[in-house]
Amino acid sequence: MELFAPPEETIVGVSAESRSGRRSCRDVLEACLGRIDAREAEVRAWVVIDLEGARRQADRIDADRRAGRTLGPIAGIPVGIKDIIDVLGLPTAFGVPEAPGRAADDDAPIVAELRRRGAVILGKTVSTPYAWVDTPPTRNPWNLDRTPGGSSSGSAAAVACGMCLGALGSQTGGSITRPASYCGVSGFKPTFGSRSLSGVLPLAPSLDHPGPIARTVGDLALLADVRPGGTATPPTIGRLRGFFEDHATPAMRSAMDRVLATLAEAGAIVVEVPLPDDFEDFAGHHYHLMAAEAAAFHRIDRGRHPERFPPRITRLIDDGLGLKAVDYLAARRHRDRLREELLDRLPGVDAFATPAAPAAAPGPETTGDPRFNSPWSLAGFPTVALPIALDPDGLPLGLQLVGRPGPGGEAGLFGVGIWCESAVRRAAGAPELPPPGWP
Amino acid sequence: MELFAPPEETIVGVSAESRSGRRSCRDVLEACLGRIDAREAEVRAWVVIDLEGARRQADRIDADRRAGRTLGPIAGIPVGIKDIIDVLGLPTAFGVPEAPGRAADDDAPIVAELRRRGAVILGKTVSTPYAWVDTPPTRNPWNLDRTPGGSSSGSAAAVACGMCLGALGSQTGGSITRPASYCGVSGFKPTFGSRSLSGVLPLAPSLDHPGPIARTVGDLALLADVRPGGTATPPTIGRLRGFFEDHATPAMRSAMDRVLATLAEAGAIVVEVPLPDDFEDFAGHHYHLMAAEAAAFHRIDRGRHPERFPPRITRLIDDGLGLKAVDYLAARRHRDRLREELLDRLPGVDAFATPAAPAAAPGPETTGDPRFNSPWSLAGFPTVALPIALDPDGLPLGLQLVGRPGPGGEAGLFGVGIWCESAVRRAAGAPELPPPGWP
Repeated sequence: MELFAPPEETIVGVSAESRSGRRSCRDVLEACLGRIDAREAEVRAWVVIDLEGARRQADRIDADRRAGRTLGPIAGIPVGIKDIIDVLGLPTAFGVPEAPGRAADDDAPIVAELRRRGAVILGKTVSTPYAWVDTPPTRNPWNLDRTPGGSSSGSAAAVACGMCLGALGSQTGGSITRPASYCGVSGFKPTFGSRSLSGVLPLAPSLDHPGPIARTVGDLALLADVRPGGTATPPTIGRLRGFFEDHATPAMRSAMDRVLATLAEAGAIVVEVPLPDDFEDFAGHHYHLMAAEAAAFHRIDRGRHPERFPPRITRLIDDGLGLKAVDYLAARRHRDRLREELLDRLPGVDAFATPAAPAAAPGPETTGDPRFNSPWSLAGFPTVALPIALDPDGLPLGLQLVGRPGPGGEAGLFGVGIWCESAVRRAAGAPELPPPGWP
Repeated sequence: MELFAPPEETIVGVSAESRSGRRSCRDVLEACLGRIDAREAEVRAWVVIDLEGARRQADRIDADRRAGRTLGPIAGIPVGIKDIIDVLGLPTAFGVPEAPGRAADDDAPIVAELRRRGAVILGKTVSTPYAWVDTPPTRNPWNLDRTPGGSSSGSAAAVACGMCLGALGSQTGGSITRPASYCGVSGFKPTFGSRSLSGVLPLAPSLDHPGPIARTVGDLALLADVRPGGTATPPTIGRLRGFFEDHATPAMRSAMDRVLATLAEAGAIVVEVPLPDDFEDFAGHHYHLMAAEAAAFHRIDRGRHPERFPPRITRLIDDGLGLKAVDYLAARRHRDRLREELLDRLPGVDAFATPAAPAAAPGPETTGDPRFNSPWSLAGFPTVALPIALDPDGLPLGLQLVGRPGPGGEAGLFGVGIWCESAVRRAAGAPELPPPGWP
C-alpha cells in the first residue's frame, strides 16, 4: 500500500505567493482556466463558468493588493460552487437540466461570505440531481471509468484536477466526504446547524450540511475560516472498527493499518474505541429522515413535473410519502440517542478515525457508498477527510476524522487533521506544507 | 359585566408577613391544610399530600428565618405539583390510577429549583389522564357542576380555593391557561424550550411547556423567578379579534370590551392587530403534532396495556399512528411560518390581548375548549392569563396576554400583566397589591 499526498499547488501556497507579489491572482485564475480547457471535456465538472466575472474579481484583488490593502488568505483564490447553492446572477439548476434554471437574485450567505473574503467565484459545479444518488455526467479525473462520487461530484472533481483550488459542496449522507475521498482531495463537513443553509436547495433539512472541498486540510481550514488548535501536539486518535472494518475492502483496511501505524510512529496515541451496540441501526433511521423530508419538500413539484425527477430520487420521495409520522419520530429519537452515545465515547480521544469510504471509487453507474459518512451526518459531528494512500489500481483512498460538535471541537479537529496530514506527507516523502495562516 | 379580582391572600402578601415575622410558614401551611380539610372531599384537587414532609419543610424555613438567614420570596410558600411531574419519593401517576405508581427517585429540575428556593412541596395535584382531555375527578371550586378545566385541573382548583398558594402545571394546547381562567386564577406559559422538561411526562415534546399557576400575576413572577420590566408604564396592547371574537360567547366579548376600556382609561394604548390570513389553520397542524408525538411516546404501552388508556387519549394515539410523516412535517413547517408571521406583528405593541378561553367553565363532561391557547403553544410565545370578570352565572372569565419569546420578552410580558392586574383591581375596588419583590 503506497502512501499518497496530493500535489503542492494549494490555497496556502498560492496565497503566500500572491501576498509576496510573486504571482498575480489573475495568473492563478488563468492557470485554472487552462486546466479547465485541458480536461473539462472529459471530466465534466462544471455547469457554468463565469469567465468574465471571475477575471474581473481576480483583477480587482490584484489592484487592491497593488494599492497596499491587507487581504485575507483566500483573497483571489478561484472557487467553484455546487449547483444547489445560489450564486448571484447564475442559474441554480441542481443537476436537473429539465428544470427551468432561474438566475439567483442573491448569493447564498455561505457564498457571500467567501466573496466578502475575496474568493473568486469561478462558476457552478455539477451536483447529482437534487443532491441525491442519481448519477451525474461528471467523471473521476483519476480514471474516467470511475465515478467522482456524489452528490458534490463537480466540486470534488474540479478541485482534484486543479480547475479551482477550493469548492463548496454539501452533505446529507456522504456527499462531501465520499467524493473528496474518491477524487484524492480533502473535505470538511461542519457541525450540524453551524452554517447557514439559506439559498441552498434542501434535500433533508435536519441532515443537510454545507462545507468546503480542497486539496489539503490546511486549505479547508482557510475556506471554512476555522483556526486549527494544537497542530504541534501528537493527538490521541480513537480508531473505530466493527462496522467500519466489516464493510471496508482489504485494500482499505490495509491502508488504514498502514496510516495508523505511520501516525503512531510519528507520536500519535492510537486507541480502539468500541461502537455502540446497535450502531448499524443508524442506516434505516437515516434513510427515514431523508425520505420523509425530501418527500415533504419535493412532493408538489414531483406531482406536477414527474419528468424532472430521475428514478432514484423518485423512489426516495415515494418511500417518504409512504412513511408514518411515528417512524419519522422514532428516527429523530434514534438520532438523539446516537449523538449522546457517541459523545460519551469522545472524552479521552481528540478524534475518531475511520476509512472515508469502504473502497476506492466504483464505476459510473453509481455514486458510491456513503455508509461510513452517514452516521456523522445523522449525529451532526464535524468530520475532516484527507487522502492517505493509492490502492492497487492507483485510485486514492481517504481517512475520515471525526471531532466534537461546536466551534472548539472543529478547531481541535482541524488541529488533528493538519497534524495527520503532515505525518502522512513526511512518510510519503512529499514536501512539507506551510501551515495555514491569517494576516 | 362585573369586574373581578381575586382575594388578597397571595404569595407576595404572605411572603411579606413571614419576612417581617408576623406570621410563621408553619401557620401559612396549616391554613392551607385547613382549607384542604374543608373542601377537598368535593373539589378533589389532590392525588397525594405529603403532610409530614411539608410540615418538616415549613418548620425548617421558620428555623432558618429565626436564625437570621436571608430567604427568597417563595421560601415557606406551600405549592402543589401536577402529577405528571416527578417529586422525589412521591409516585408520579399522571391521572391514571390503573398504571402502577412508582415513587420518583429524584425531583424534576423544575421542582428541585422551587425546593432550592424554599418552596414547601405540599403534594401532587390531579392531572387529566396523560395530560390529555379525558375528564378528571376534580371539580371547579366556583361551582361543583363545572369542570376546573384541564389538564392541570388540580393545580388550578387547589390554588383557587387556597389549598396552596401556587402550583406547577403544564400546557401542550391550553392546559395551564384554560384551567387558570376557569378557576379565576392566573397562569404563566413560558417561552417554548426555556424551562426543563426533564422528569415531566411528555404529551408532545415539541409543544410541551411547564409553568406555574397562582392567584396573581405578581405571584406568578415570583414562582417563575422572572423580574417584571416596566410595570409603571402604561403599555400598548394589541387586541386580536377575528378568530378570538368569532368563537367567544357574548359574555366573554363584553368582558373583553369592558376590561380593555378600563385599561385604556387607565392610560394603556389599545390598538387592533390583524391576524394572519390563514390563522385558523393552526388547529389541524397543532393536532397533527400532538397526535404523532403522543403516539410515538405511548404506542408500546398502549399496545401492552390498553386498559390504562381512556377513550380520548386512545383516539389521539390512533390518529397519530395513522398520520403520514409528510403531514407531520407540514405541521412543523406551518408552526415555523406562524411564528414568523406573529413575530412580524409584535413590534409596536407590548403584548397581544385575547380572551383566555371562549367562555366560562362548561360542565364536567369536558375539560373545555383550548382553542384560544393552542396557537401560543404552537408558536411557542409566552402567555400570562389573569381573571378579569365574573359572567352572569358568577363564573370567572380571564384575559390572555401574549409576549415576545425569550427572557426579555417574558420580563416585558410580566410588566404588562402586573400593570393590567393593578388597573383591573383599582376599577373593581379591590385593595392594591404590593409589587413582587426579591430580597
